[in-house]
Order: sequence, then structure tokens, then C-alpha cells
Amino acid sequence: MASPKETTKNILLDIGTDLIAQGGFNATGIEAVLKRAGVPKGSFYYYFCSKEDFGLQVIDRIAVASNARLDAELTDPSLSPLQRLYRYFSRSCESFAAGECRKGCLVGNLGQELADQSETFRRRIAEVFAGWEERIAACVIEAQAQGEIPGNFVPGELAAFLLAAYEGAVLQAKVRRDPAPVDTFLKFTFHRLLSGERGDAG
Amino acid sequence: MASPKETTKNILLDIGTDLIAQGGFNATGIEAVLKRAGVPKGSFYYYFCSKEDFGLQVIDRIAVASNARLDAELTDPSLSPLQRLYRYFSRSCESFAAGECRKGCLVGNLGQELADQSETFRRRIAEVFAGWEERIAACVIEAQAQGEIPGNFVPGELAAFLLAAYEGAVLQAKVRRDPAPVDTFLKFTFHRLLSGERGDAG
Repeated sequence: MASPKETTKNILLDIGTDLIAQGGFNATGIEAVLKRAGVPKGSFYYYFCSKEDFGLQVIDRIAVASNARLDAELTDPSLSPLQRLYRYFSRSCESFAAGECRKGCLVGNLGQELADQSETFRRRIAEVFAGWEERIAACVIEAQAQGEIPGNFVPGELAAFLLAAYEGAVLQAKVRRDPAPVDTFLKFTFHRLLSGERGDAG
Repeated sequence: MASPKETTKNILLDIGTDLIAQGGFNATGIEAVLKRAGVPKGSFYYYFCSKEDFGLQVIDRIAVASNARLDAELTDPSLSPLQRLYRYFSRSCESFAAGECRKGCLVGNLGQELADQSETFRRRIAEVFAGWEERIAACVIEAQAQGEIPGNFVPGELAAFLLAAYEGAVLQAKVRRDPAPVDTFLKFTFHRLLSGERGDAG
């Protein structure tokens, strides 16, 4: 069981995640987090070394949860490797669209906001993206072994491209408040690029 | 010739563009802009109705400049339509990489930062993206007419996909401080998706 300290810390991180998703890291005040948690002002440093430490722990929790989801979905033996990849990205798109295309990817948002401002955040966010890419690349390799994806796609490059194109589609959909860009992402990556259908086939 | 008022206004917009590119819109203080311009405090409202008006005018100037570049490059008769598209995106990638992969796309950054916070900004940024897409789609249609891109790509969808994948690649490159993701973007879009090379050809 979590200690009372751990429980309170998790509540503060939950609230922080929510506020950062709404307004970004710089605009999220520690006082607002404490107030919403009903935790007395001044006790923040009992739980965290600094606001940076708090932000890094928010990112770490997202990394743990997202890696667990990737590990579970991308090794699911009931589907072929390419089906797993498609399901992973299409579920991500659906979940984003179900939230009215708001917020977007918190890790991508923080990367955009903080990469030029803090080398500590930039490195940590780059590590999270690298962890996602590794897991996607491992599934690409499995798909190649089963002949579902051609062998001369470099797995790490394909993984990086899928991730970047997904992040860009989420941004476009957020700005339009319309899921069309994430649907287009799925269509052009899975139904065109990976199916080999260039267009003149149909 | 520009009036003194117009000149000062443009200096304020230049400085604003630079500061917003570095730190985002919310973190950019009007006082910092005025101080750097050597313009007295309190005279901001002589030039702009509000900070929102200032931000919208920063966006408008970027839209005018970027549309002019798109119009010039994507109608250049010395190149085929597909060559124009490739040159446009590869130059954008080079210019971003030459700036050490910092800042990224200011319109994309503002979209990420402000889409959930301000409907006025969200709509204006969506209009800018739509303007870029229209120009790219027009060039796709020309490329299709010349047989360079298969006819059953929907031009607006392909334009949206290219733009979103580019924006996502810029974000990844910014977080890694490494241009590899923008190179991968060019490779997967122009050399794979549009060339019809699925991988098993090589």
C-alpha cells in the first residue's frame, strides 16, 4: 500500500498532469496545484525538490504508463505485428478524437514548449520518444520477419516516421478541432505507405 | 514609404516574433518587447488594441511571408510540380536544421500552445494552415496532371498529410536537437510514398 506521503504525491502529480495538459508547464503554478489538492501552501518541497523535479516526475509517470500500454499492445499474440501497430495508432487517434481533439500529446506539447528552454527537459523528453520508438521498431522487425512490412524499411526510421507523423497529425487536428488529420495519418501511413498502394492501384 | 508609426509597429512585431519563437506567446511580456524596442512603456496601445491583437498581427505577418514564399516556389516554371514540392519542403528542412533545430515552426508552436486557450487564435492559426494546404494541394493537382503523382491521391488530403508529417518531424528534431527526423520525413514522403517505392523494390 502507498504511504500517505506517496498518496498525496500522486494526487499532486495527477493534478499537475491535468493542469499542464490544459495550459502548459510554464503557465502551471505550484500554488494552483496545491490549492486544488487541498494541500497546505509551503508543503510542496516536502514532496518535490523543485518545480522542474515536479515536471520531470509528471513526464516519468506518463512514460511508465505509455510504455506499459505499448508493451502490452505491441506484443499481443492474438494479432499479427502489423495489426498490433495499426491498432495501437488507431486507438490513440480514437482516444484523442473522443476528447474533442483537445490537449493532444502531453509529451509532444512539453517538447515543443520546453526543448529550447531547458536542456534537462529536452533530454528527458527525447528519452521518452526514444523509448516509444524502440518499442514500435521492435514490432516493425517482427512484421518484417512475417513478411507484412518489406525488409528494406529501416525499422528505427519507420518507427520515427510513424511517431512524428502521428504527433503532427494530432497538432493539426487540435488546431482545427476536427479529427480529419488523424484519419488522414492512418490512411497515408498504413493504407498507402505500408500497403504499397501508391494510388494507381485503385 | 512607411510612416513612423508603421515603422515602430513593424519593429515591435519583429521583436515579438523573435521572443514568441523563443518562449511562446504566454511567456512573452509586452514590457519586454517595448524595452527591447526602446519604446516607452504605455505606448503599446497606440500601436495595438491588446496583446491578443499583437499576437494575431505577428501571425498575420508570418502568413503573408510564408504564402508569398509558397506562391513563388510552387509556381516556378523552371521546375516540374513535384520538383517544386520537394524543393519547398527540403529547403524548409534545411533552414530549420541550419538554425540548430531550434524554435521550429512558429505557427505550429502557437497552435499547440493556444488552440485550447483561445478560440480566436485557434481559428486564425487554422486559417493559416488551410492557406498553406491549398497552395500545396494546387501544386499536387498540377503534378497529377503531368503524371508525377498518381491521380487517386486526394490532393487536399495529401497536402494535409505532408504538412502534418513535416510539423511532426520538426517537433521531433527540435526535441532531439538532431535533423535526422526531417531527413526521414523527406525520405518517407517523397522517396517512398510518392515514388511508389514500398521498399521491396530496392
